[in-house]
Amino acid sequence: MTRAPASFVPPVAIDPDGGVPIYRQLSDWFRRAILDGHLRPGQRVPSTRSLAGELGISRISVLSAYDQLLAEGYLESFAGSGTRVAQAIPSDAWAVPGGGRRSAPPDRGVPRRIAGRAAGLHGPEQTWLDSQGAFRVGLPALDRFPTGRWARLLSRHARQLAVATMAYGDPAGHEPLREAIATYLGAARAVRCDARQVLITTGSQQALQICAHVLLDAGERAWMEDPGYPGAHQAFRTAGVRMVPVPVDGEGIDVGEGVRRARDARVAYISPSHQFPLGTTMSAARRMQLLAWAAREGAWIVEDDYDSEYRFGGRPVASLQGLDAGARVIYLGTFSKVMYPALRLGYMVVPRDLVPAFRAGRDAIDTFSASLPQLAMADFIREGHFARHIRAMRVLYRERRAALLDAIGRQLDGRFEVVGADAGMQLVGLLPPGVDDVAVSRKAARRGVSARPLSQCYLEPPSRGGLILGYGGATPRQIEEGVRRLARCF
Amino acid sequence: MTRAPASFVPPVAIDPDGGVPIYRQLSDWFRRAILDGHLRPGQRVPSTRSLAGELGISRISVLSAYDQLLAEGYLESFAGSGTRVAQAIPSDAWAVPGGGRRSAPPDRGVPRRIAGRAAGLHGPEQTWLDSQGAFRVGLPALDRFPTGRWARLLSRHARQLAVATMAYGDPAGHEPLREAIATYLGAARAVRCDARQVLITTGSQQALQICAHVLLDAGERAWMEDPGYPGAHQAFRTAGVRMVPVPVDGEGIDVGEGVRRARDARVAYISPSHQFPLGTTMSAARRMQLLAWAAREGAWIVEDDYDSEYRFGGRPVASLQGLDAGARVIYLGTFSKVMYPALRLGYMVVPRDLVPAFRAGRDAIDTFSASLPQLAMADFIREGHFARHIRAMRVLYRERRAALLDAIGRQLDGRFEVVGADAGMQLVGLLPPGVDDVAVSRKAARRGVSARPLSQCYLEPPSRGGLILGYGGATPRQIEEGVRRLARCF
Repeated sequence: MTRAPASFVPPVAIDPDGGVPIYRQLSDWFRRAILDGHLRPGQRVPSTRSLAGELGISRISVLSAYDQLLAEGYLESFAGSGTRVAQAIPSDAWAVPGGGRRSAPPDRGVPRRIAGRAAGLHGPEQTWLDSQGAFRVGLPALDRFPTGRWARLLSRHARQLAVATMAYGDPAGHEPLREAIATYLGAARAVRCDARQVLITTGSQQALQICAHVLLDAGERAWMEDPGYPGAHQAFRTAGVRMVPVPVDGEGIDVGEGVRRARDARVAYISPSHQFPLGTTMSAARRMQLLAWAAREGAWIVEDDYDSEYRFGGRPVASLQGLDAGARVIYLGTFSKVMYPALRLGYMVVPRDLVPAFRAGRDAIDTFSASLPQLAMADFIREGHFARHIRAMRVLYRERRAALLDAIGRQLDGRFEVVGADAGMQLVGLLPPGVDDVAVSRKAARRGVSARPLSQCYLEPPSRGGLILGYGGATPRQIEEGVRRLARCF
Repeated sequence: MTRAPASFVPPVAIDPDGGVPIYRQLSDWFRRAILDGHLRPGQRVPSTRSLAGELGISRISVLSAYDQLLAEGYLESFAGSGTRVAQAIPSDAWAVPGGGRRSAPPDRGVPRRIAGRAAGLHGPEQTWLDSQGAFRVGLPALDRFPTGRWARLLSRHARQLAVATMAYGDPAGHEPLREAIATYLGAARAVRCDARQVLITTGSQQALQICAHVLLDAGERAWMEDPGYPGAHQAFRTAGVRMVPVPVDGEGIDVGEGVRRARDARVAYISPSHQFPLGTTMSAARRMQLLAWAAREGAWIVEDDYDSEYRFGGRPVASLQGLDAGARVIYLGTFSKVMYPALRLGYMVVPRDLVPAFRAGRDAIDTFSASLPQLAMADFIREGHFARHIRAMRVLYRERRAALLDAIGRQLDGRFEVVGADAGMQLVGLLPPGVDDVAVSRKAARRGVSARPLSQCYLEPPSRGGLILGYGGATPRQIEEGVRRLARCF
């Protein structure tokens, strides 16, 4: 039973001309509401004064009704806490097994059909989501986040909430934050843009939805890296888009194969800096091939740059967007990995001539983003905390990555072929041919270890299973222990 | 020029075996980055120490490169503030007219085609959005919001941000908030549900998107009240749904006409408590007719209960959801009107057997809602502030409504037929036949008055124009002045 909240005025319909005394109409209503479970045991009811005022009836009527209900045991009154629905009304008078309220069961004779596209969103069982520790994919080192400084920025803006920042805001986002992001992306990712091309989203998932709906009509085709990011599959599925799997090799997406399978696709979705999940960096030759295809066919490229802030091996990699002379790239980024996931802030950079369409799409999807996190985030970047935090995390993740590679080398030697460890906060371990990665992942979940199965990232049947291991959110000690437990799973 | 942020490590690609000295590769890279606009005048560059460390090169190389760039005037160094891109690089070396950076123009020979559904999202010119004062529709009395108390709740939770509330959360939302909403809806709106049926959204717009995508495939048909809520039109359009306009009369949506136009529609979208925009309350007979149709045909009803917390004339009205024995209703509510719009919190209540599909849809749309506002909102309800705030606003809006009706009566007598003023925070004034409401609205915007044209809420050609006037966010003085200005517009 939750704590009873302060009383709300119930929707009692009083008919002054109905021939039934008002006190009786009122007591009948309360009796029914209690038995139907609209009012719960222990819940406070309005004071006689306020109820009389709200309903425009005499207080005497309310007093009489409450007296009646108290006498019948439906209500109880306590000194200092007003009148409440009696605790003694047995819970099972209103609850049914399974926790629901009493209500007629839905008519099973009539089909309860939902959309075909929604039926496809369920996906397979995901036991790797059970643990938030080692090796949960996408989780940063939340224990190292500067919460004190962040809380001060949030509190400062919360105290200063003004009419302008509480009302409906710009669908594209808070102007100073868009400025700060444009400057950051120019400096750190060689993205060419100005603030007007930046749109704030609730994260990359929403950005993917906007891309899918603004760029493609239902039934049109999009190239998807295979294996690829399951969140992108969900977004394109929601939009009714036909996904064309295009294999990924050591240079990134196989553009030639894409052309063979669907030359006239409207969109290519890629993660060129650090391919999800395989970790490949797209080669310069492939980048040029892809841009040339897009320019020739009038297609769009959605570049998901979800975690390229962190890079350990090899050379820094600039964005594909910055190379694109044809303004064919929509660039997506997120603060989920460099700040924290439950902040729900991300951004997209769109070609200048597409800004009006994307603004309208952003507006249609959920109007605009909450103001407070945007205000605080703009300050966090402008005051330099963001750059400092990224720098500190780069050092930390380098250590955690080394710890994971070391533990794998010692404990999983020969059973685990590591790929894609050059950047980001995760790597992939390919399993020996024939080993079922979903089964291994399920066993790992039972031992409290999160290991995302690689096979669930494929649209076509995978040639070899593997596990995606995130090391951002795990300490070296947790990593060591996690690998030990993992070793027992296969 | 925005203030320069702290430096980010740029994506410089150094080739140690390329035959070109490293200092020269570095100075070439910076020169190009400055000229291409990736680095902006006044922007700080990394310290020699940190850049050398990040790139894994000797500090001497970085010093040499910076010396060269300082000598050439690309960089400037200032005591105490490190080295920056020179302010003297003329802005127009990197900016082009229209504010963009220098980049090749998109190839105009190749079509730049977006989705047909996105082209439909633009909608007509909306000059009524120019003003946030009288009579902006949907805007509550933000100046009366208890910001101090709310800021304290937010700050409390911000300071206590823990790993569990920073990581990925439940797509359905924060459990205690869902409990609090279920209790509130049972008491105040006679909604039958338990917390497991409640899903937290970023607002009713997102809830509409989820409904459209989960309940309907592209090309399927939905009844839409006509006139109706333009946000719902946008959501159903995004999903590729075919909208069937169904007229609204004094009893609400004309169910018989709906059956004649599309008996086998999959969904009916309605706002029965306070129809948007006409303000009609749906009659009991129509409610029964609609529920019977849905049960018979296996259709779903989306009930948008966007502002029924405030009711002034007539009797309280309970939700349609609470009457529905067939579990055919999806109930939508929002905190935008009772809290503030930029909070971005809303909720939906779905039939028990549809919970898995809606959870998957919520997850696909944007994963989950930000944690901090959910934590604070749960406390705000449980500690009774929510019920108190609603009660105070009900009194306030009653006064503002009276002030508006009075001013209309005195200043617009005979030119403005008021309808739908029984509930919520807005009313409609029908204009004399033949008067163009968009033209009046545009004139009003020029005088600083927001007056949303009724005709833009129609899917079919409207029979008569009108203005939708919100009074929640305007003081009696602003209302008086607003009506005075409005009177001069026609």
